[in-house]
Amino acid sequence: MTTLPAATESVGSEASCCTHEADALVDDDTARELARVFKALGDPTRVKLLALITASAEGELCVCNLTEPVGLSQPTVSHHMKLLVEAGLVSREQRGRWAYYRPTTGALTQATRSLTG
Amino acid sequence: MTTLPAATESVGSEASCCTHEADALVDDDTARELARVFKALGDPTRVKLLALITASAEGELCVCNLTEPVGLSQPTVSHHMKLLVEAGLVSREQRGRWAYYRPTTGALTQATRSLTG
Repeated sequence: MTTLPAATESVGSEASCCTHEADALVDDDTARELARVFKALGDPTRVKLLALITASAEGELCVCNLTEPVGLSQPTVSHHMKLLVEAGLVSREQRGRWAYYRPTTGALTQATRSLTG
Repeated sequence: MTTLPAATESVGSEASCCTHEADALVDDDTARELARVFKALGDPTRVKLLALITASAEGELCVCNLTEPVGLSQPTVSHHMKLLVEAGLVSREQRGRWAYYRPTTGALTQATRSLTG
């Protein structure tokens, strides 16, 4: 005569709802990096600035073309652009007295794909 | 004898760098809405939470499955989830004592496409 195996099913309780444990697929460093990208766009002005640069027929825009559409001074626009550069969303090139910005191809799309699979 | 048309080219000056004016393609309301979506993900914990829910085999996760992977209490996780719900990135359904969250299909992808064309 053999001993019956112990039941493997959960006995059930009101405090237990879940059959599957979730694994953290995004590690701490990746989460911080992704949050930095998205946080840079957590401001309406920076959303507009990135949209303007991305839509530019030349593939880049001078800072002097960005001030009027957002209605802000050049120093303020330059500050917003600095945050977009630091987040890796645009690159900056100084040519003579003007800074030119172009979107970093795929940076935002790649960040989004990391979260949407 | 006819009068010559006035020159249409810019006379050029050191202060003028730009041949094309940029148009604001994203209006104020749209920029605010997009910024709200991205701002909700401007935090590493919320990045992780959305990644967990999106990767869930069941297409949804109970709040009780989210606390352990991010190492936070249930009230704190619920607060973060509230911000993701308000940004339209996840939906919430109360079933019995537990809240279940599922990703809002395409919300982040759509926001990203608004900026990347």
